[in-house]
Amino acid sequence: MSEPTTRTITLLTDFGPKDSFIGIMKGVITSIAPGTMIIDLCHEVGQQDVIEAGFLLSTSYSFFPPGTIHVVVVDPGVGTDRAILAMEARGYFFLVPDNGVIVPVVGEASDADKIVKVENDAYFLKPVSTTFHGRDVFAAVAAHIAKGVPLDALGPEVSGFATAGFPRVEERRLPEGKRELQGEIIHIDHFGNLVTNIPADRLSGHVVIKCGEAVFPGLKKTYADAGRGVLLALEGSSGFMEIAANQANAQELLGVGRGKKVYIEMS
Amino acid sequence: MSEPTTRTITLLTDFGPKDSFIGIMKGVITSIAPGTMIIDLCHEVGQQDVIEAGFLLSTSYSFFPPGTIHVVVVDPGVGTDRAILAMEARGYFFLVPDNGVIVPVVGEASDADKIVKVENDAYFLKPVSTTFHGRDVFAAVAAHIAKGVPLDALGPEVSGFATAGFPRVEERRLPEGKRELQGEIIHIDHFGNLVTNIPADRLSGHVVIKCGEAVFPGLKKTYADAGRGVLLALEGSSGFMEIAANQANAQELLGVGRGKKVYIEMS
Amino acid sequence: MSEPTTRTITLLTDFGPKDSFIGIMKGVITSIAPGTMIIDLCHEVGQQDVIEAGFLLSTSYSFFPPGTIHVVVVDPGVGTDRAILAMEARGYFFLVPDNGVIVPVVGEASDADKIVKVENDAYFLKPVSTTFHGRDVFAAVAAHIAKGVPLDALGPEVSGFATAGFPRVEERRLPEGKRELQGEIIHIDHFGNLVTNIPADRLSGHVVIKCGEAVFPGLKKTYADAGRGVLLALEGSSGFMEIAANQANAQELLGVGRGKKVYIEMS
Repeated sequence: MSEPTTRTITLLTDFGPKDSFIGIMKGVITSIAPGTMIIDLCHEVGQQDVIEAGFLLSTSYSFFPPGTIHVVVVDPGVGTDRAILAMEARGYFFLVPDNGVIVPVVGEASDADKIVKVENDAYFLKPVSTTFHGRDVFAAVAAHIAKGVPLDALGPEVSGFATAGFPRVEERRLPEGKRELQGEIIHIDHFGNLVTNIPADRLSGHVVIKCGEAVFPGLKKTYADAGRGVLLALEGSSGFMEIAANQANAQELLGVGRGKKVYIEMS
Repeated sequence: MSEPTTRTITLLTDFGPKDSFIGIMKGVITSIAPGTMIIDLCHEVGQQDVIEAGFLLSTSYSFFPPGTIHVVVVDPGVGTDRAILAMEARGYFFLVPDNGVIVPVVGEASDADKIVKVENDAYFLKPVSTTFHGRDVFAAVAAHIAKGVPLDALGPEVSGFATAGFPRVEERRLPEGKRELQGEIIHIDHFGNLVTNIPADRLSGHVVIKCGEAVFPGLKKTYADAGRGVLLALEGSSGFMEIAANQANAQELLGVGRGKKVYIEMS
Repeated sequence: MSEPTTRTITLLTDFGPKDSFIGIMKGVITSIAPGTMIIDLCHEVGQQDVIEAGFLLSTSYSFFPPGTIHVVVVDPGVGTDRAILAMEARGYFFLVPDNGVIVPVVGEASDADKIVKVENDAYFLKPVSTTFHGRDVFAAVAAHIAKGVPLDALGPEVSGFATAGFPRVEERRLPEGKRELQGEIIHIDHFGNLVTNIPADRLSGHVVIKCGEAVFPGLKKTYADAGRGVLLALEGSSGFMEIAANQANAQELLGVGRGKKVYIEMS
């Protein structure tokens, strides 16, 4: 840990708390690369919800030491021939299923320093099961990367990856020189805050925000700028616009869920 | 970890398991103070429930190595001008919002060796958000304390802190030389045990305990001293009186919640 | 951590996430044996469900570094005179209540290299409470084992342990040379997969699997071998037969719970 060469590994999964899956992954990592610092990013991603996982990864990865290996096992395609990718990008390593989860971090292949398809089973735990690649491939390979195995040893370089499915923020012109951003709720946090995929820095001028039955005239600075129990819109801690309520649960107050559209009129 | 100078940091929050907030805090700590042992105290404190957080902190902190830095982020006032305090007391460090959460550990300012108001943003992660001081202030400052930054470097010394809100145990005289303690349920654990704020060592003589419809003639030694599924009162592992049920859920059996009054008649 | 002599300790409990019990255990371990790697195996074992705990332990322990100390605190008998056992077996240490939880790992005492009854309170945290042996006995003793205290120092050697209650796979002959295995659902994972106690390698020949209203003609290789939302039987990642559904929740689809019988007709 205190050695300069020891790396950190983070784990982001949809495995939940009821099983020993995550503990087993840590056992595999510790067996291969003793002393690795292992940090849970989140394990309650919605089941097989690649979009929420990508959001959490993109808003978290940069707070870790450079060289940290971020591992994502939100993987509806386990057991199929979907690829597993190891990437070096933005000063970090990423080990992810090729299902688009990396897109919010690495928009295009050209943004990465290197991308390889993980195929060299010398770095796998054998026999490789068909249902728990988190243990047999992800944990084992991440530990080998932590030990210094270069990405090139893991498999052939590839020049692209799956990109489908991520909701984009749409912008369109309205009459009278106004513009509208259209995004959606991409994550609902523990407090019921409704986090959107709209970067707050895209809002400018006079702003009206609409979501379901709620209308907000601009962003507040912090929760306490609204009365207790009152809904507000603000820039969340990750730089995205969110709808919250001061000391209350915005999801319950507004009765909307993930995927709900949010409209921002700017003039 | 095995170096004598490396410290332990504990985290106590109401952040729950659905987000990457806690993982991000650990990333910040590890970035600033690599090798720090980080231990989760609890992350499912009731939302903004300062009282429950104070209870959990007070019954946990002393089981850690001396010099451990205990960080509490249960913080209804985030984004307002409530202060953040760093304290040295009872052989430990505490980094807490100034909302009274520290009171069960450090009853009065004179019980602390030093208290400073955390203001020196040289030790913050910048830009400081208005909604996630756990990341930008608490994690960063805790890591700097772990690295040996003295409290005096963090901000000016203060001589007091917020104290409001903690339920006290009231004692009153009854006729015929009897006395009554009145406390309340301050925490309900995973097993449905109803933990009160009444120290068991305040009970003496002939004791009758009342809570809702239940009446208990004194304390049992352990769960198994009652029949299976039967309610009992006993001294919990933290020294406080609790109401439990042998291999059953006292909360469900009794149908009461946090804040429910508990009366103890002593003669 | 990177020192060859530093051990790993795992924790398997039914303590859940609402309390600081687990954090306190880690504090005790870290106080006694600084630098120990502590890994959570699972903390949401069904309350006092020794059978589920034994299953999780048996399918997890071998993925950790040799010499890892596996600690189980699923302990309906806390405060009674049930023994606590420390064992060395299969290259690992186990510290468990003597309630049969070890049986799926160490079927008989002769499978262990050594078994002692933990009695030497020199290695306990004192005063020992009657309700939280996880803190006062298990965490403290595990930390001392991690520091190199030999099992013989903990208490007298014993030659047996409690074995009751574990569901066994029954095999019986049917007419026409057929055979039937009868097992049951022993664990339901986060995804609703119904894990049985039947080792998949006991299935041979032509196989028909029955559970509740569902009938499966043999095992599939992986989830994706069934249509989306369709139930299937397959070998789970731990080698046991399980009933799952491709990108869906088998428990909800089938409406059965833990303990439900599963029949396998082989011809």
